Amino acid sequence: MNDRTATAPAATTAYPYSPGLEGVPAAETALGYVDGAAGRLTYRGYRIGDLVEHGTYPAVANLLWTGDWMPSHHLPTAPVPPAVMTALRSLPRAAKPMDALRTAVSTWGATQVLDWPATPDQARALTAFSPSALAAFARIRRGLEPIEPDPDLDLVPGFLYQLTGERPDAGTARALDAYFIVGAEHGLNASTFTARVITSTRSDLASAVCGAIGAMKGPLHGGAPSEVVEQIHKVGSPERAEQWVRDAVERGERLMGFGHRVYRAYDPRAAALRKVAESMEHKPDWLELAIKVEDVALRVLAEKHPERALKTNVEYYAAAVLQGVGLSPDLFPATFALARHAGWTAHILEQSADNRLIRPDAIYTGPGERDLPA
Amino acid sequence: MNDRTATAPAATTAYPYSPGLEGVPAAETALGYVDGAAGRLTYRGYRIGDLVEHGTYPAVANLLWTGDWMPSHHLPTAPVPPAVMTALRSLPRAAKPMDALRTAVSTWGATQVLDWPATPDQARALTAFSPSALAAFARIRRGLEPIEPDPDLDLVPGFLYQLTGERPDAGTARALDAYFIVGAEHGLNASTFTARVITSTRSDLASAVCGAIGAMKGPLHGGAPSEVVEQIHKVGSPERAEQWVRDAVERGERLMGFGHRVYRAYDPRAAALRKVAESMEHKPDWLELAIKVEDVALRVLAEKHPERALKTNVEYYAAAVLQGVGLSPDLFPATFALARHAGWTAHILEQSADNRLIRPDAIYTGPGERDLPA
Repeated sequence: MNDRTATAPAATTAYPYSPGLEGVPAAETALGYVDGAAGRLTYRGYRIGDLVEHGTYPAVANLLWTGDWMPSHHLPTAPVPPAVMTALRSLPRAAKPMDALRTAVSTWGATQVLDWPATPDQARALTAFSPSALAAFARIRRGLEPIEPDPDLDLVPGFLYQLTGERPDAGTARALDAYFIVGAEHGLNASTFTARVITSTRSDLASAVCGAIGAMKGPLHGGAPSEVVEQIHKVGSPERAEQWVRDAVERGERLMGFGHRVYRAYDPRAAALRKVAESMEHKPDWLELAIKVEDVALRVLAEKHPERALKTNVEYYAAAVLQGVGLSPDLFPATFALARHAGWTAHILEQSADNRLIRPDAIYTGPGERDLPA
Repeated sequence: MNDRTATAPAATTAYPYSPGLEGVPAAETALGYVDGAAGRLTYRGYRIGDLVEHGTYPAVANLLWTGDWMPSHHLPTAPVPPAVMTALRSLPRAAKPMDALRTAVSTWGATQVLDWPATPDQARALTAFSPSALAAFARIRRGLEPIEPDPDLDLVPGFLYQLTGERPDAGTARALDAYFIVGAEHGLNASTFTARVITSTRSDLASAVCGAIGAMKGPLHGGAPSEVVEQIHKVGSPERAEQWVRDAVERGERLMGFGHRVYRAYDPRAAALRKVAESMEHKPDWLELAIKVEDVALRVLAEKHPERALKTNVEYYAAAVLQGVGLSPDLFPATFALARHAGWTAHILEQSADNRLIRPDAIYTGPGERDLPA
């Protein structure tokens, strides 16, 4: 008898259902704190703007991992183990960089001893490895040979060197380093939560970061600034900015890089990136253009939509910086993943230190118990 | 000023904090339903015992993916793409099979077009691929050549063939197929939840299964029956069972394979596996021994600990079947992962069909906003 009319078993959960776990606290953290209303972001209490001004990505990563502020902390990129290089060389050249990075991290994990609980040394090793792996894939797919790390370069200039074959000038390195700092951590977003869920089974750091990369790959995760690049390209030159923005707003088009789910005020990450950019001795053309477009856009948006709090978001300057330092737009998501390694691994350390299996309930909505059809 | 005394920002979440999200509903599902008190498990309403008795793993997987019960549904294993084979060959021979499987799935994903939303065809393709990949790695690490799939064999006998080079007899294939069926799905455990969180960002099926494998790798996930094998080996022969079990219980040792977090009654998966095993025409020695040890253990446990509801759990017969069909214990976790592919991918389909980003809150417990140390 196919008993489709049987009553489904009742849900036995103690909490009301909140789709997407919105508003449900799933972890305690002392790492990132986001105050969207005030436009504030702190890592372990330190303002993101101060961290960008006084720190480097390795110093910020170390702060997240250990709680200690050591502004001169150095972290060069690490060599790619042969097994990973073989895996990367075997991928189709058209493979997505995020898939290549996920595969590199998984292969790396298979070559390491990663005992529980995760340690700052494990976090450091993976964070130093991944930029080399992504740079290697980016070269291999263009038919170029990967470049060995330069131990004298810190992580971000080292990544650029392994990507391009040239040691970047100070301004370029500084701009991308600032991007890495503001991308390092942002509380319990979907990818970080994924890393914590995987860690909560007492699994290893590489498994958790693999899962996090997979989650970040999804377009709903946010942090995909490549559309901003197209917009800046369309504007073309500073003198066209005013007209282009006005026309776009008149047509009812959405300006990319403005407005945010959480931040109602100016995104503190955008502010920090803009400040770094503006202080560069030799501002490249792309930066002049981005600043000009932003000024015009904020003015026009305030004039046309005074009721909305549309401020610059992090994607805007992220896009400007990423394309400005020469990254192709299809590398943006994976570069964001490199930056977020610090936060993911810091959350993994935090979860490991006070662990409890994360295992929510499901509400069963299917058919009641029934016989198989004859 | 290092303002360590500043007040931490207050939590703004609407729900009370439940560590590990215990009792918190995080998804709706019409797939697996676990009634631990009654010792019942259903997939889409059908009792696990009936599914094992009348179905095969491909039929059960298809039921989970589509809702249709087609008992003659056929699914052979799929070939391993060259990029994956290269990646597997490059891994250290001592790599953990779970790490190898995670890397294989990640590499496979990098070679596929996996558009959103996930489809039953994608689920079928990955579920058919993974057994071939694990079998290939299991051979490569022993210095043997991988074996191509036999399209005439269904998934489970096909996996055994690619592992051993011999087509399994019907009883062996049936026993492992039953194990795959009872391992296929079990509601919102940590690995399945991981797959749903990753999917909720609109990421792809391979990314989600990669994350799930990573979560299942953790010892807190459960489903690691290799300790049961050691126990059965220690008993050695049926005639020694009574004395061995009594001695172990007297010494206060825990008997592996008895008792469960959720099931207070006899685990329906263990019951289903035992039934298949008992109905085998030629019961192998290992099975006779396992049945004998179980009978003795249940009797002694009831006698010595009448207050506890210690019943046989799924690990017990899982271990018996897995070692009985010739798998080495270090392949057990990855074989469990192969079986769970059906459930993971079915949850991915379910999440994709009615998606909402899963993004819980964090409770910030760190220092309040402060200046960097001078």
